[in-house]
Amino acid sequence: MRDAYHEELDSIGDGLVEMARLVGSAIGRATTALLDADLKLAESVIASDERVDDLQRELENRAIDLLARQQPVATDLRIVVTSLRMSADLERSGDLARHVAKLARLRYPQSAVPRDLHSTVLEMGQLAQRLMAKAAEVIISKDVDAALQLEADDDRMDELHRTLFQHLLDDRWQHGIETAVDVTLCGRYYERFADHAVSVANRVVYLVTGEHADELTSSTTPAADGS
Amino acid sequence: MRDAYHEELDSIGDGLVEMARLVGSAIGRATTALLDADLKLAESVIASDERVDDLQRELENRAIDLLARQQPVATDLRIVVTSLRMSADLERSGDLARHVAKLARLRYPQSAVPRDLHSTVLEMGQLAQRLMAKAAEVIISKDVDAALQLEADDDRMDELHRTLFQHLLDDRWQHGIETAVDVTLCGRYYERFADHAVSVANRVVYLVTGEHADELTSSTTPAADGS
Repeated sequence: MRDAYHEELDSIGDGLVEMARLVGSAIGRATTALLDADLKLAESVIASDERVDDLQRELENRAIDLLARQQPVATDLRIVVTSLRMSADLERSGDLARHVAKLARLRYPQSAVPRDLHSTVLEMGQLAQRLMAKAAEVIISKDVDAALQLEADDDRMDELHRTLFQHLLDDRWQHGIETAVDVTLCGRYYERFADHAVSVANRVVYLVTGEHADELTSSTTPAADGS
Repeated sequence: MRDAYHEELDSIGDGLVEMARLVGSAIGRATTALLDADLKLAESVIASDERVDDLQRELENRAIDLLARQQPVATDLRIVVTSLRMSADLERSGDLARHVAKLARLRYPQSAVPRDLHSTVLEMGQLAQRLMAKAAEVIISKDVDAALQLEADDDRMDELHRTLFQHLLDDRWQHGIETAVDVTLCGRYYERFADHAVSVANRVVYLVTGEHADELTSSTTPAADGS
């Protein structure tokens, strides 16, 4: 009986990892579609988001079913509830990848991103994908140090986001308002995507330690507090 | 025993309603702060978001506690799990109100929104606040028709959002890139805020009927499908 139960718990974890892999792949492909103005790829990202939504519903139903039949307490209960929260993060990440792909489709056959911002946006896309891959690993390994590392990686995303804004607000900006709007939204999508990956990792930290990631960082590395 | 249990369940509902009221008030005040360039009001919105975050943590802990001690099944279990999802929507709405307030603070003593867009942004703010007030009522009344009404109200938000974009992309736009970026982000914040209010209402629909709001709308009003 308990074996079947732990199998079910594991299968929820597997579902989360699958979602993380799908949305990680989606943001990578959406970035390529955006920069290369690849309509087919954009369409495929948009279509594949349905699979992520389906997975989330399945996972939610499985979690509720498990709560009802097995009535877990203590840690096991926290795992199930936290899984629900993580699946919401991942579902939302999928939406954001879809938004990037929709922007690519909207501006086809042009690229929505001007040439001089390609390298910044490419790095944002790669970083977003890497953060999600790390979040997936953290779900499997439950490695708190690895999880806390995501915050540091996310600082790089914030830097890249600032770089975008510097370009936008530079007097020499010559790409007009429409492109400014596109770049603003697209920067926001990547930033939020990264936030959700960090959030998934932080929830693992909370599960393992019972402390929230921000408390943990400031208590173990007091120097970080004043920086 | 069961009485104490239903009291606890009710208190979770009360917590959700309080969160909805707080974030509804926050988006209203943030809009005033934005349009009137009112720094004090902006600061108060930013500060008050902490209360929303605290409420969410409390509510989450109370829900987990209730799951552990009372082990609800069937409908009661769905109520608790759905409450967790709603509290996440409401917490995120609070963040979005805070973002609007931060934009107000960033551009003080100017208003981030140019004069000719004030009426559109004012209507977006009022609509956002009204949607959240309706969501709060729906949590209390569990009225499915009232809940489905929010989708229609949200159509107006989409219209207003399109109006913003029309202004932005009009050749006569004369407010420069920085303001275009501000208006783009701020339109996005209102739109997302409204999405979360709709999402809260839709979750009530699902609780009451066992059907997702989109299925329900298309089955009861087939005409809406082709529009």
